[in-house]
Amino acid sequence: MYRTHNCGELRSKNIGQSITLSGWVQRIRNLGGMTFIDLRDRYGITQLVADEGIDQKLAKIIGSLGREYVITCNGIVLERTSMNSKILTGDIEVQIQQIKILNQSELPPFTIEDETDGGDELRMKYRYLDIRRNPVRNSLLLRHKVAQTIRKYLDSQDFIEIETPFLIKSTPEGARDFVVPSRMHAGEFYALPQSPQTFKQLLMIAGMDKYFQIVKCFRDEDLRADRQPEFTQIDCEMSFVEQDDVLKTFEGMITSLFSEVADVNFKQPFQRMTYNDAMALYGSDKPDVRFEMCIRNLTAIAKGKGFGIFDNADYIGGIVATGCANYSRKQLDELTKFVQRPQVGAKGLIWIKIDSNGDVKSSVDKFYSSDDLLAWGEHMNAQKDDLMLVMAGENEPTHEALGVLRLEMADRLNLRDRGTFAPLWVVDFPLLEWDEETERFYAKHHPFTSPVSTDIHLFDSDPVAIRANAYDLVINGVEIGGGSIRISDRELQHKMFKVLGFTEAEAEEQFGFLLNAFKYGAPPHGGVAFGFDRLCAVIGGTDSIRDYIAFPKNNAGRDVMINTPSMLSQVQLNELSIEIKSKK
Amino acid sequence: MYRTHNCGELRSKNIGQSITLSGWVQRIRNLGGMTFIDLRDRYGITQLVADEGIDQKLAKIIGSLGREYVITCNGIVLERTSMNSKILTGDIEVQIQQIKILNQSELPPFTIEDETDGGDELRMKYRYLDIRRNPVRNSLLLRHKVAQTIRKYLDSQDFIEIETPFLIKSTPEGARDFVVPSRMHAGEFYALPQSPQTFKQLLMIAGMDKYFQIVKCFRDEDLRADRQPEFTQIDCEMSFVEQDDVLKTFEGMITSLFSEVADVNFKQPFQRMTYNDAMALYGSDKPDVRFEMCIRNLTAIAKGKGFGIFDNADYIGGIVATGCANYSRKQLDELTKFVQRPQVGAKGLIWIKIDSNGDVKSSVDKFYSSDDLLAWGEHMNAQKDDLMLVMAGENEPTHEALGVLRLEMADRLNLRDRGTFAPLWVVDFPLLEWDEETERFYAKHHPFTSPVSTDIHLFDSDPVAIRANAYDLVINGVEIGGGSIRISDRELQHKMFKVLGFTEAEAEEQFGFLLNAFKYGAPPHGGVAFGFDRLCAVIGGTDSIRDYIAFPKNNAGRDVMINTPSMLSQVQLNELSIEIKSKK
Repeated sequence: MYRTHNCGELRSKNIGQSITLSGWVQRIRNLGGMTFIDLRDRYGITQLVADEGIDQKLAKIIGSLGREYVITCNGIVLERTSMNSKILTGDIEVQIQQIKILNQSELPPFTIEDETDGGDELRMKYRYLDIRRNPVRNSLLLRHKVAQTIRKYLDSQDFIEIETPFLIKSTPEGARDFVVPSRMHAGEFYALPQSPQTFKQLLMIAGMDKYFQIVKCFRDEDLRADRQPEFTQIDCEMSFVEQDDVLKTFEGMITSLFSEVADVNFKQPFQRMTYNDAMALYGSDKPDVRFEMCIRNLTAIAKGKGFGIFDNADYIGGIVATGCANYSRKQLDELTKFVQRPQVGAKGLIWIKIDSNGDVKSSVDKFYSSDDLLAWGEHMNAQKDDLMLVMAGENEPTHEALGVLRLEMADRLNLRDRGTFAPLWVVDFPLLEWDEETERFYAKHHPFTSPVSTDIHLFDSDPVAIRANAYDLVINGVEIGGGSIRISDRELQHKMFKVLGFTEAEAEEQFGFLLNAFKYGAPPHGGVAFGFDRLCAVIGGTDSIRDYIAFPKNNAGRDVMINTPSMLSQVQLNELSIEIKSKK
Repeated sequence: MYRTHNCGELRSKNIGQSITLSGWVQRIRNLGGMTFIDLRDRYGITQLVADEGIDQKLAKIIGSLGREYVITCNGIVLERTSMNSKILTGDIEVQIQQIKILNQSELPPFTIEDETDGGDELRMKYRYLDIRRNPVRNSLLLRHKVAQTIRKYLDSQDFIEIETPFLIKSTPEGARDFVVPSRMHAGEFYALPQSPQTFKQLLMIAGMDKYFQIVKCFRDEDLRADRQPEFTQIDCEMSFVEQDDVLKTFEGMITSLFSEVADVNFKQPFQRMTYNDAMALYGSDKPDVRFEMCIRNLTAIAKGKGFGIFDNADYIGGIVATGCANYSRKQLDELTKFVQRPQVGAKGLIWIKIDSNGDVKSSVDKFYSSDDLLAWGEHMNAQKDDLMLVMAGENEPTHEALGVLRLEMADRLNLRDRGTFAPLWVVDFPLLEWDEETERFYAKHHPFTSPVSTDIHLFDSDPVAIRANAYDLVINGVEIGGGSIRISDRELQHKMFKVLGFTEAEAEEQFGFLLNAFKYGAPPHGGVAFGFDRLCAVIGGTDSIRDYIAFPKNNAGRDVMINTPSMLSQVQLNELSIEIKSKK
């Protein structure tokens, strides 16, 4: 037997017992004849100790140990002379009686410590060593706990986990599907699912009523820092529901989850905000509502005073940075540069300070009187010592830029506490988006998303004003999930295809098997999908989803540990009836 | 709101309540002015009733209903005049007050009943309708329950579910990997995992200690009736364990599972049998031990009596079919034909009857005296009224043929009760298999499987006799899972590669990243993988795994519902830098 206990388990109640532990050598210290070994496993660290009196053979083994050696050790649990309250086993130590080296280790390419000297790529290459480090291991343990808790909750609500297929069909708009050549059907391909959307709708038609799945999805996109070609979704769908039923169910899930894994208690119902309000007040469809600092519209009161930039703007708005009237010229220049970066794209930034006496100073003193600026302050509810930051320009881009500035100021003011969580439903998204280039509407979500019933009359008169029966869950400014009530009425579906410019034949070609299924009694249904990797990262309080994925790919979609993607042999290519074409 | 209750929920305690139900119309009966509607959802069936007195508008809606229409109904719960004990809601019925048609349905292509008139392919094409049938729905519900129970058990044992990647690397022997062309890296490919084997070993090296995953795996094999190109594994691995630790852990899992989902209680430890015993006594490495009928070796006592077929045979053996002495000539001919089918491949079958007086009659009376045959009977423990069935030939094929005959006789004698479960570990598999064609050894499991420690000395002298530290779990003659203790010692790994004929360079090329990981302190570890689809089928008491898969592929690896695999557009092929080659 390799162990009677694990390395995180022994307490004072075990003192005097003869035990066996196995694990990795974290650290060896030799102090005046006494040797201390920190033995580590997944569960913790236990201190092993050998004093001067041990026999030569044992001393020789101990002398030969190196970091990350795998050993098994028999010994007696002793009370520790200097207790260590930082570790759970800090009250005891184990007097070594026997040690056996189970495996040696070469010197790891980086230190196995909370703060390591290894760079990103090196740690990715040796991910199996990186996982030995507490922060990565704990992220994976959290992920497991999140999955278990979600499954338990959904099971308790009569949801059934059903596996949908991975080898499915490429859809015409899915130029970015990953595909899989079929050996048995030369020239034909499967595709990996971007989501189980159609299958979960089929399961509702099949009468399964409440479905969920924690499932890998695949998207062959050009990668951004926080995207992975394979990612995990918590995919859910329900029948005989309206939007409110869905929101309530998943508020319950998120509340139960945060309570169990993060000891955070949410009040239900969660805050709900329309898409229009989110854009107007926060400049974002995923506002961070841990703090206020709402955007205020100054268009009416700031126009017409001869300041050309403002007079020609569609929109003028600003935010109030509390207590920032003491910002230096340098700091204000920094902010201006920040909003002028291409990622934000603003032309400039106007600032107005109200000092402790209530006097104003601004970058637009030439155009506006103190009274003008104090009126702005009143409109924006700015107080003494506050800094007003104002931008102008086209409506949407200016709102978005103010939204980004709002987050930047919140970071500077430490208003985005990682231990605070503010969940929010954003509702009433637009159903359609107009694309200038192709001069047609696109479904903002997908063509099966239901419009809000009171907006259906707008299909003929004002399609862009139609609100979707769609919703996103946002926590701390991060979109955690989203979904919609689906269209289950055939006439409405036809209206939708018509406004999207599909002919009947095109609709049939693209969505034939689903439309066919809809002929046999589709129940009203709707659902939601959560980004599991991102949800874990939000709970863990980090920005990078990579820490929560055991074996992530890098930004080029490559796994540098196993070195994939890679070339195939000619035999394999022949079997698959494909050949490589050089890219032009 | 679409419903206050589901269709399986109402009981006599609800009598008098005003309720709302939604579901599908299962059946409509019109009996002398009264109309009865069976309303169905996932949870059950509730009888709705409308009597003569209802208003015309309601009567018109009811008159327009068809099978599989989706409706929502308000009504009052009444006591049923003639109760139906076959359904859970049989004590009540609902007096219709309002009905709304939520969706119509065309006539389904087959009846939505337990016994349907739809053939296999038709039901696959309309799988979403097939799932509405009780047997399929219940199979999917069972699958969910099995998954939940297993996760709960493994979680309680400190196992962590960790997702391993799907986009991995093709291995040289993996000509039968499914591959995925990379768009971003032209000419390069990912491969879909046949199992997470290497990743779970890496997770052990990473110190995760106890890992599991319920995960899709992919194998591009020519399909047999019960194989799917994508299938689900319960994949597990543990560190610091020996074989016995693994067997105990998963006996616990299987025991807990059967207790919770099938109300069957197993005694632990499970029966264990060596591979050699399984082959000798049952003619199979996955014996069905719900019944005895062991194979007996007659070689010594049946040889040398002038019967050429036996005298020239390597092996003579037989089984006893209890109480079958009354088998007719026709029945015996049937059995002979059965063993002569190519799938069994026996040359012939010898029979010996012991009648109720203890007299013998046989197909070899010419060569053996009554005393000879009674001596066989004694050796085989045959009684009066029993039938002995004997075969001879080469050792292994004869054992296997007897094994198949044994199952056939058990089927005829109803000894394979679907409600009885007999779990069994088969252990001590051979480590190596000699391949005559390539004249080399192959690993029976994989090259990282550890040999039994006491057999290591045989590497130089008698490799074929080396037993592997490997085990299979068999239930009712079905292999449910298998695994092994892995090699974690580098010298032993070198021995293994040497006997498999790998040069160091070849080993490095094929298994480089895993071998590299082994340099940094690999713990002793081992694991097991269970076939989840098959496990569900065994619990459900059916032979076909397809019933337990929501959207299975047919025998040609095709999903006939969505019609995949299918052609890609030229745009997609260009993006992926591949072209189709016509197969020769």
